[in-house]
Amino acid sequence: MSNRNRNLLLFNKFIFKELIPNLAYTAKWLVLALIIGSLVGSASALFLTSLYWVTQYRETHLWIILFLPIGGFFIGWIYHRFGTSVVKGNNQLLEEYYNPLKIIPLKMAPLVLLGTLLTHLFGGSAGREGTAIQMGGAIADQFTKWFNLKSDDRKMVITVGVAAGFASVFGTPLAGAVFALEWLIIGRLRYESILPSFLAAIIANYACEGIWLVHHTEYLIPTVPVFDIINVLWVIPAGICFGLAARLFSKSTHFWSYYFNKKIKYPPFRPVVGGVIIAASVFLIGDTKYIGLGIPTIVDSFSQDLPWYDFLMKIAKTSLTLGSGFKGGEVTPLFYTGATLGNALSAIIPLPVALLAGMGFVSVFSGATNTPLACTLMGIELFGAEPGVFIGLACVLAYLFSGHSGIYNSQLIGSPKNRKFLRRKGKKIGQL
Amino acid sequence: MSNRNRNLLLFNKFIFKELIPNLAYTAKWLVLALIIGSLVGSASALFLTSLYWVTQYRETHLWIILFLPIGGFFIGWIYHRFGTSVVKGNNQLLEEYYNPLKIIPLKMAPLVLLGTLLTHLFGGSAGREGTAIQMGGAIADQFTKWFNLKSDDRKMVITVGVAAGFASVFGTPLAGAVFALEWLIIGRLRYESILPSFLAAIIANYACEGIWLVHHTEYLIPTVPVFDIINVLWVIPAGICFGLAARLFSKSTHFWSYYFNKKIKYPPFRPVVGGVIIAASVFLIGDTKYIGLGIPTIVDSFSQDLPWYDFLMKIAKTSLTLGSGFKGGEVTPLFYTGATLGNALSAIIPLPVALLAGMGFVSVFSGATNTPLACTLMGIELFGAEPGVFIGLACVLAYLFSGHSGIYNSQLIGSPKNRKFLRRKGKKIGQL
Repeated sequence: MSNRNRNLLLFNKFIFKELIPNLAYTAKWLVLALIIGSLVGSASALFLTSLYWVTQYRETHLWIILFLPIGGFFIGWIYHRFGTSVVKGNNQLLEEYYNPLKIIPLKMAPLVLLGTLLTHLFGGSAGREGTAIQMGGAIADQFTKWFNLKSDDRKMVITVGVAAGFASVFGTPLAGAVFALEWLIIGRLRYESILPSFLAAIIANYACEGIWLVHHTEYLIPTVPVFDIINVLWVIPAGICFGLAARLFSKSTHFWSYYFNKKIKYPPFRPVVGGVIIAASVFLIGDTKYIGLGIPTIVDSFSQDLPWYDFLMKIAKTSLTLGSGFKGGEVTPLFYTGATLGNALSAIIPLPVALLAGMGFVSVFSGATNTPLACTLMGIELFGAEPGVFIGLACVLAYLFSGHSGIYNSQLIGSPKNRKFLRRKGKKIGQL
Repeated sequence: MSNRNRNLLLFNKFIFKELIPNLAYTAKWLVLALIIGSLVGSASALFLTSLYWVTQYRETHLWIILFLPIGGFFIGWIYHRFGTSVVKGNNQLLEEYYNPLKIIPLKMAPLVLLGTLLTHLFGGSAGREGTAIQMGGAIADQFTKWFNLKSDDRKMVITVGVAAGFASVFGTPLAGAVFALEWLIIGRLRYESILPSFLAAIIANYACEGIWLVHHTEYLIPTVPVFDIINVLWVIPAGICFGLAARLFSKSTHFWSYYFNKKIKYPPFRPVVGGVIIAASVFLIGDTKYIGLGIPTIVDSFSQDLPWYDFLMKIAKTSLTLGSGFKGGEVTPLFYTGATLGNALSAIIPLPVALLAGMGFVSVFSGATNTPLACTLMGIELFGAEPGVFIGLACVLAYLFSGHSGIYNSQLIGSPKNRKFLRRKGKKIGQL
């Protein structure tokens, strides 16, 4: 064959066997990301707006907290009656990803939305990411049916839904895209779904912020010191504390969940008991700062002196809320735990309080979900690029020191964090 | 066993089996990262400072470019005489990582430093990352010997050296840390070395910038538009062009390398011929903008109108320089290619020229090294958090559209980028 013919052949091969398949792949996932991203972003907008009203209502009608046990019963009953197929929540998404069996019922979305809003209305302590991810995953997975997608495509669709939900609920598209890839397996990240995740995360975030004009709280780290060796050495104990706090958070949630499941057989009664304890403690303390999302306290932790035990109170309240069967996410309470712990550490560690609060904000989350890169990106998206190295190092340390624990019991251990635990490879966190 | 005893046992197990091993691990790698990071950061400082002087000298004594063929012979001869065991450069680091055989000779560091400085002095077109990574890897790997490290620790040490080299030569610690994890296997990222990489990258960058006071060029993207759907749709063709440019860059370098190896048997003659062609073209064109690092043109591409073919000229010059056996890295020429291509695309794509230049800067690099996350972080570290989503999406697209090509022939394909190419899994780029 002449050289000219050979080159022509290579060129044709490149066009038809590489470029066109890649263009087709991009076009397909652009269309899916546009549809799923818009839907999930809109669902997040609806959720965030309702959550705002519900929180406002509770804060101006504090008597409603008295009805927390009744609200709990109602949530428990709804899930018991209509939601047994979707009650595993985030873990269910992980399990369907690992081992696809049946399409996530669409009702997961309205049920978790309703459950979360009721939890917040009556004064449970919970977050938002579980709700967003479950809405995202459930909405996205319907396209498996409608578009008749095969197993591999289905995995991508679930990833796309998670990316869209996470990105839009926190207003952090890069973190959302990377979270959806990173949360699947501890210690490993695979790139098969990277383009669909980025597209969906960006589009969902735009739908929520740009179209529905839902805005997110802004946090500020006004001064970032030079990153010299002394400061590196101070980040290490801080990161370790954040990792241990993440571990405590995860273990407490699982403990209460296990305890309530064992002691109370009829599921709707579990949140009743949990609700009684939480409501009683609110009136005992005489302060609502540990319930709901806790955004005002998170904001305060960047600038004011707070009691050192705030993070422990939040862990206790949230683990009791979620462990007893209320609905919502863990992530905003994790932000709260981290930011207030960072605030407390500023008494010992000579770094600016806002920096410590910001490091804790994302690092405890990193330790509890085992997603250090997504959390580093989230820190940058929320606080700017300047504190990036402080945040990155703290997230990695928290990831290491939370050990093989985490809020998602179904999360697989792909690469153990420390070579001493190679036997744990391939196990789920909940099996340890 | 009583509950109290059981809890005590669990607590002891946590302290002695988890916390203390993790603390020991952190302490060990902190010490290693401090030593290796300081050494590699200092080596980068020496390299960057010498490179600055060499470039200044060439630009004020242009006649020296006439001696490029002689300089080429000298580099070729040194490597032929003393450097056959280190001539594979970055690929050698990858191969030792996959299949550890023998410690990288320390002489890799001075040889690549000398080779790169001579290449730049006489007017070759090359970059810096190869030099930094090889110095980092070679310095770090000596600790394998001195500390008698085992195979797994050795993999970490190589990763640490790469992270330190990359971070310090570009002033981007987060990108350096993630690059060292991400370049190892296409489509996968593993977290075993995440803490050592972060520590070493941060320390090396501080050594270079904070101790030796070596500063990096600053780039500015003054306006970032809202990321609405229209802009998402414009990023897609841009990202595709960046990916294809990355592919052209990689393929050209490999083509010239193959061609010179085939046609010229005595290695020192190869850069002589390459040098004659490059020197002749410089005097023919009457401009030195396509040789050396090309930083002034990269800076210009953020604000001025440049000829549309600048990126092609740079690809031609660099592939000829490196393919014929001169030394240096590919990354700064990749920045150049991307930034000037972005500049050219601003004639068609209605995005700010600085944004397109910045997107190209990191995206072509992402496509040519298959490291979209490191490049996204690099974009944020260089240009700030605001253009982050534009940069992230462009990097991911460039990663996809460069296909299974790249500047590192030894790079393993872990997860093929498109499911159509599942058969390529486990192969090296150079084998395709």
